[in-house]
Amino acid sequence: MRVLAKDLARIAAEGQGGEIELFGWVHRIRELGGVTFVILRDRSGLIQLVLSESGDFSESRDSPGPSLSGELSLESVIKVRGIPALNEKAPGGAELKVGSLECISRAAGDLPYQVNGDPAKIGLDAILDNRALSLRNPKLRAIFKVQSTIIEAFSAYLRGEDFTEIKTSKLVGGGTEGGAELFEVEYFDTKLYLAQSPQIYKQIMVASGLERVFEVAPAYRAEKHDTPRHLNEYVSLDVEMGFIESERDLITLEKGLLAHVFQELARKNLPELELWKARVPDAGEVLKAPVVPYEEALKIANDLQKKSPGASGRIFDINPEAERFLCEWARQEAGTELLFVNEFPRRHRPFYTYPLDASRTMSFDALFRGLEITTGGRRQHDYDALLEVLPKFGLKEEDIAGYRVFKYGCPPHGGFAIGCERLTQKILGLANVKEASLFPRDRKRITP
Amino acid sequence: MRVLAKDLARIAAEGQGGEIELFGWVHRIRELGGVTFVILRDRSGLIQLVLSESGDFSESRDSPGPSLSGELSLESVIKVRGIPALNEKAPGGAELKVGSLECISRAAGDLPYQVNGDPAKIGLDAILDNRALSLRNPKLRAIFKVQSTIIEAFSAYLRGEDFTEIKTSKLVGGGTEGGAELFEVEYFDTKLYLAQSPQIYKQIMVASGLERVFEVAPAYRAEKHDTPRHLNEYVSLDVEMGFIESERDLITLEKGLLAHVFQELARKNLPELELWKARVPDAGEVLKAPVVPYEEALKIANDLQKKSPGASGRIFDINPEAERFLCEWARQEAGTELLFVNEFPRRHRPFYTYPLDASRTMSFDALFRGLEITTGGRRQHDYDALLEVLPKFGLKEEDIAGYRVFKYGCPPHGGFAIGCERLTQKILGLANVKEASLFPRDRKRITP
Repeated sequence: MRVLAKDLARIAAEGQGGEIELFGWVHRIRELGGVTFVILRDRSGLIQLVLSESGDFSESRDSPGPSLSGELSLESVIKVRGIPALNEKAPGGAELKVGSLECISRAAGDLPYQVNGDPAKIGLDAILDNRALSLRNPKLRAIFKVQSTIIEAFSAYLRGEDFTEIKTSKLVGGGTEGGAELFEVEYFDTKLYLAQSPQIYKQIMVASGLERVFEVAPAYRAEKHDTPRHLNEYVSLDVEMGFIESERDLITLEKGLLAHVFQELARKNLPELELWKARVPDAGEVLKAPVVPYEEALKIANDLQKKSPGASGRIFDINPEAERFLCEWARQEAGTELLFVNEFPRRHRPFYTYPLDASRTMSFDALFRGLEITTGGRRQHDYDALLEVLPKFGLKEEDIAGYRVFKYGCPPHGGFAIGCERLTQKILGLANVKEASLFPRDRKRITP
Repeated sequence: MRVLAKDLARIAAEGQGGEIELFGWVHRIRELGGVTFVILRDRSGLIQLVLSESGDFSESRDSPGPSLSGELSLESVIKVRGIPALNEKAPGGAELKVGSLECISRAAGDLPYQVNGDPAKIGLDAILDNRALSLRNPKLRAIFKVQSTIIEAFSAYLRGEDFTEIKTSKLVGGGTEGGAELFEVEYFDTKLYLAQSPQIYKQIMVASGLERVFEVAPAYRAEKHDTPRHLNEYVSLDVEMGFIESERDLITLEKGLLAHVFQELARKNLPELELWKARVPDAGEVLKAPVVPYEEALKIANDLQKKSPGASGRIFDINPEAERFLCEWARQEAGTELLFVNEFPRRHRPFYTYPLDASRTMSFDALFRGLEITTGGRRQHDYDALLEVLPKFGLKEEDIAGYRVFKYGCPPHGGFAIGCERLTQKILGLANVKEASLFPRDRKRITP
């Protein structure tokens, strides 16, 4: 019966005796006074194996002991049987005194990437070029265990609030966010585009009577820039909800949602958070996140900017610099790393955004640790009102054919989207959002 | 405070008195002896509203009562306040005696689709052409509440078995399943393809040390045929698992997984199942699903075919006809609607399938109610063995660059994929898989 690395100390402490079996990868090999120490890596963690000459090593029967390290290449997959023993000096507090070892899959010796190295000392390009191997590093793999919990907690919270999960087509006739930043797909005899967001679909699903929907799916932006905050393909955590009054209902929902996500991470992923020396905000911190109207936010950002060394001039928009200043302000003023900016000017928001007055909209962004992680707002549900604003956006009725269903009864509604990789990045303090994508795509990176 | 339709009978029975508020869509209007009966539809169900002349109808103050039906168009979104009352004859056993009504979003009178009609009497094309409206029909919407639970239960079961959820790129350099059935994407200055499956990525993730992974994501097949069982874009429920011995470990996993999915549907979606007069197999039925080797399955299918009226000749493969015969056989012989066919011949499986012997592979299909819902198998984890079979498949080493990581330690592993729409289709007894896709894509259908 297989035992996982993480359970070895407990089993050793129980002292039932008897051999147990472990499977995993050879993470590190060290020889010391005729004894070979191997660090074994499995899905649960790392554990020390002690190999002495008395063992029966099926793959190296003629030369046990010291020379085993030659046979046992790094990254080989092995199966070991042996007796667990407590050892304070071993990682995890226990080790396995190996009785027999079988090599299941021998790794070639020309390993092109140092799996057991410190990722901080390896460049991002090397990490991504060797993705299939770099993901074996426990610290890099931890990013995706955290991401898995984010998706789980996001979905679970919304289901608890009576939301239905939907899956909509990613092959669409055009963009809803404006701009020409679309990837074209040859679709039989015609051309389609990869969806920038499920915007129109999630609105249709609210109007379908599901009222509350969410989707976890890829989204595509054909933007040429290469920054630490952009991906051309990312996982969008989308939410849409009917019968709201303003964006404040959505902010309340997102606060509850983020508090739950952080709580679940603290409960399930402490080892992964520790590898990155990361902490998640507690629920209290999330709930007290300030909600700051756009104009006021701009003023706060400019005030902080003036006081900062190397001030680069007036800030005219909630740009990346402003996002950093605002999060710094929220930390100092309210003791939280999260804030919401609402009431964005009409000109900064898509045509479907609901007006607050002639110049402002019922929209918001969420900023977390210096980065925008969410954009959202109430949507215009009145078809005639939607038609009225189209000319200002250079659009015609036929450009928004999908919205025609709003003629036939549509509740007030709104929603938001969280960038899954950005949230992962900020939770763990990663320098580049690409680190939070398993197989990131940018202008030049198309493999693996 | 808003009350949902499904809670009205309970509230009426509690008889606390006092007005309550409901929001929803006007599903049906009927006038009888000066009283207007409206069926209101919200996300939870249908409920009867009783509108008499004494009410205060803000949108129709001058002409309450009978003429209200002219004001109150079908599909308008309304808010009503009133007193709940038990009424055995009303749907759900209760109704609301309306005191005031407000029209939130008036539906235009030229409704192009009859939402409250019986979908069985409406052609599939009309349903899909008017998708944004047809989804408002409770029976059609029920399909996607069922699908939401399928995804939830699939994910929850696997997480319980220590699987990690992954999200991999859908933009790839080529197909892994062979064939030219790929959609081409203009990706900046180069061409990429929409992934047919996350095959190589999920294998890499097993080899990365996550060991057990799953993914819920779109998959693409540029197949030209238009059948009731094919979609060009579908949701693939993918599973991959390390340290297995044969496809039998995967079949055991899938049995547990399907039993859990069915159990959750029975627990959460009885109203939706009832709308389709559908039942889900119980756990006992799933666990006793037979596992039949390919050659034997072919013999069973041919035996049944010979006995059937209008026999069309020998069956040479597990084709759709054979799938139906085999499920019929499983129902008669084992009292179950599920069976697994394993040990497919080498020539029927992709290059990465693990051999059982010279001619057979450690692979399987799951058949449910006459349709293949899963394909899976153990994979070849030995890189040299993989290279050996390539010529038989017309492939070269450079065609499988992603697999090169197997040189550096890879555990025995395997996995499978369940077509989410096919499973939904078979659970509810839908005639066409397109009914189980929110916004299906086929050769001609590219909107909405």
